[in-house]
Amino acid sequence: MAEPSETVANPQTESGGEAEPLYGLTTGVARATREALVAGDAARVRRLVRPLHYSDQADLIERFNPALRRGFIDVMRGQLDAEVLTELDESVREEVVQQLGAAETAAAVSELDSDDAVHVLEDLDEEVQQQVLDALPAEDRALVEEYLSYPEDSAGRLMQRELVAIPAYWTVGETIDHMRESTDLPEDFYDIIVVDPRHQPVGTIPLNRIMRTRRPVRVRQITAGKMFPIPAVTDQEEVARLFRQHDLVSAPVVDEGGRLVGIITIDDVVDVIHEEAEEDLMLLAGVGEADVYHALMDTARSRFSWLAVNLLTAILASVVIGLFEGTIKEIVALAVLMPIVASMGGNAGTQTLTVAVRALAMRELSRQNAWRFVFKELFVGAINGILFAVLAGICAGLWFQSVPLGGVIASAMMVNLIVAGLSGTLIPLGLERLGVDPAIASSVFLTTVTDVIGFLAFLGLATLFLV
Amino acid sequence: MAEPSETVANPQTESGGEAEPLYGLTTGVARATREALVAGDAARVRRLVRPLHYSDQADLIERFNPALRRGFIDVMRGQLDAEVLTELDESVREEVVQQLGAAETAAAVSELDSDDAVHVLEDLDEEVQQQVLDALPAEDRALVEEYLSYPEDSAGRLMQRELVAIPAYWTVGETIDHMRESTDLPEDFYDIIVVDPRHQPVGTIPLNRIMRTRRPVRVRQITAGKMFPIPAVTDQEEVARLFRQHDLVSAPVVDEGGRLVGIITIDDVVDVIHEEAEEDLMLLAGVGEADVYHALMDTARSRFSWLAVNLLTAILASVVIGLFEGTIKEIVALAVLMPIVASMGGNAGTQTLTVAVRALAMRELSRQNAWRFVFKELFVGAINGILFAVLAGICAGLWFQSVPLGGVIASAMMVNLIVAGLSGTLIPLGLERLGVDPAIASSVFLTTVTDVIGFLAFLGLATLFLV
Repeated sequence: MAEPSETVANPQTESGGEAEPLYGLTTGVARATREALVAGDAARVRRLVRPLHYSDQADLIERFNPALRRGFIDVMRGQLDAEVLTELDESVREEVVQQLGAAETAAAVSELDSDDAVHVLEDLDEEVQQQVLDALPAEDRALVEEYLSYPEDSAGRLMQRELVAIPAYWTVGETIDHMRESTDLPEDFYDIIVVDPRHQPVGTIPLNRIMRTRRPVRVRQITAGKMFPIPAVTDQEEVARLFRQHDLVSAPVVDEGGRLVGIITIDDVVDVIHEEAEEDLMLLAGVGEADVYHALMDTARSRFSWLAVNLLTAILASVVIGLFEGTIKEIVALAVLMPIVASMGGNAGTQTLTVAVRALAMRELSRQNAWRFVFKELFVGAINGILFAVLAGICAGLWFQSVPLGGVIASAMMVNLIVAGLSGTLIPLGLERLGVDPAIASSVFLTTVTDVIGFLAFLGLATLFLV
Repeated sequence: MAEPSETVANPQTESGGEAEPLYGLTTGVARATREALVAGDAARVRRLVRPLHYSDQADLIERFNPALRRGFIDVMRGQLDAEVLTELDESVREEVVQQLGAAETAAAVSELDSDDAVHVLEDLDEEVQQQVLDALPAEDRALVEEYLSYPEDSAGRLMQRELVAIPAYWTVGETIDHMRESTDLPEDFYDIIVVDPRHQPVGTIPLNRIMRTRRPVRVRQITAGKMFPIPAVTDQEEVARLFRQHDLVSAPVVDEGGRLVGIITIDDVVDVIHEEAEEDLMLLAGVGEADVYHALMDTARSRFSWLAVNLLTAILASVVIGLFEGTIKEIVALAVLMPIVASMGGNAGTQTLTVAVRALAMRELSRQNAWRFVFKELFVGAINGILFAVLAGICAGLWFQSVPLGGVIASAMMVNLIVAGLSGTLIPLGLERLGVDPAIASSVFLTTVTDVIGFLAFLGLATLFLV
């Protein structure tokens, strides 16, 4: 196992406009590894990979195409850092686990911290998951199964079991001695949890406070009073909000009896904040989840359903247009201009909608200020409605040399921007009331409304005043 | 100052579908404070506010309307926690600082940690900022001005100066004694930085490792070799990526000479991750920034420019339609159906675009896998293009009892979904190459392309084959 490592200087000169990251996987290493792999030089691949951080190894694996990925895993078999599995994208991880097989995956998983082990296992295909579980040592299996008994995306799944808990009557000296003697301390920790005799947390002490305090002082005297015990069933989004709101670094997790069962540290929460923000972004765009690494057919399938819904709403808008076939036949300019009204409504509505969805997720928008927000967006819609009514009216009037046509598009524009402001707020607020994630469905509803109202107002007014 | 506190039970029963947060500002407290404020009961307001965490006090201030906000600040004058300022939304903070005046703001700012002080000051109006700076004690002012000399959104702005740095030849015992005796340690810290005689960082030691190690051991022996010193000019987005990628809790910041100038801790990075994700979301929706708390006219103005751009692109699409006025006059069904093709292209393109923008921000998409990604999206576009071509063709054919019309919409749909897949990838990749944030401008370009191609393909094919 004493193979040497190899480092590759990064060819900065050729990187052009794209900035290389400060640390992490560089283009040079990625290319050298690919070349060694293609050339079948297994020893060189291992030399190149060894100095990399596990998350950079994961990046490397993700960037290979599936064939090279299989070759790479074969070359690295038995030598991959177990933590690489935790960093892989879900769909790539599934592939890698399939290739490694249940026994080798189980061996890797049992090296991980409990929360990381669960993170690797929870997203696997049920059948594969069971095979890996069966291959785990009985003790590890029991622990993982206990984790999996907590709801998905809950604090229970996020916490780690490894923690330092001490009674309040200990002194600082006893605490330090305990830590020097313990052999099963967690790998990293920032706070010590003080518990009462029923193992309920009563406070936390940051390590630096222990360190600054003299040995004879009792921990009770330096325990922070304010503490935020998190029930294990709490949703991870709420956990993230709590950490961010109160600038926490770690927080104890408790069962229904209020007993300490684990601890959540901020590095896990960073991933959650990240995922939740990404989820909102993807849902608003009608993408199930970020899918750079998904297989082609999976990606196509996951996008299909949203497009199918959109086809239905587009047909609905067409039906509205169909009501005015006679008018359009008489004044073809209407067909030319009508997409402007619908498009402006859709864009203005999306602006409002995005702000509302984000504010709801951040709890900046609540029942107390909801009406103020709705009225504000209504007025914003009205102000921009007037401005763009004038602009669009002048453009259309000049283009088709018709003042009445300019007046009709101006009125329709104003109506649609006000409707956009209203529906951009009321749709997400309504969905939230109904307990539906407002990110998931609101943009379909919104564009349906702005399309239908846009065409209806424009063609309707034209039928009344121009024909 | 011995006024009592008051806590309000939260009326869970009336909260209906909206879940109350686990901790933080509750509806009950918010309402009671508003009532006390309206009733002019200043003492009760103070009693209610005292038990709240500073970030909950900030939330409370944000939720008031401007008039109540002014009343609240008057009541709390001189009693507000300085940290409340750091938690306020930018536009609300500006209002509050205006009301407090330079002297009182300066007094609050000088109580804060250096990085928090800068965070409060950097976003203020230049004139107000200068007034507050002038009111600061000379030493604090010099420190803040040094911070402000670093570029906006850089590691230098994010770091705190307060840190613990020790030489490598010290023992664990000496280190612990140093910490017990120092009076100017930072409030919170998780790692100790080991420096060489030129004050360049050579490694970090997590506090828990100090704590587990016996007193005579030299710190050199327990220093973690792998370390990520961050140049002070590094962009905060890169800092966030680094922390997330390598699961860091803190990292030293260095000047051009490689000397230690500060430390960045993960709680600051959490805010950055959050802001950057929000920024992408808002830019894609054409909103400058999240503006729940902005004044009505500011909001209307900030949305105007995006809508103006959209008006121009919508007119461009109309010009394309205008080329086919003759065809539409003959077959009005074309006017009825044409929005379907454009709308499907816009949606499919937005799906691809959002995934690409996010992947670029996360560096999952790089020069090495860019072409693979483009081809994949092209094929996804083609697959869904075929499926929706069939669906739309059948619908249109049945609706207007015309097989050729069905064929035309089917072909146009296929063309537009392929174009959507291509432009959804090539536009953000191209902008990134040019050094432009791909989130900022790509959706305008995209919908312009899908609208123009959608109308052109549909009406063009109709002109060729149906007239």
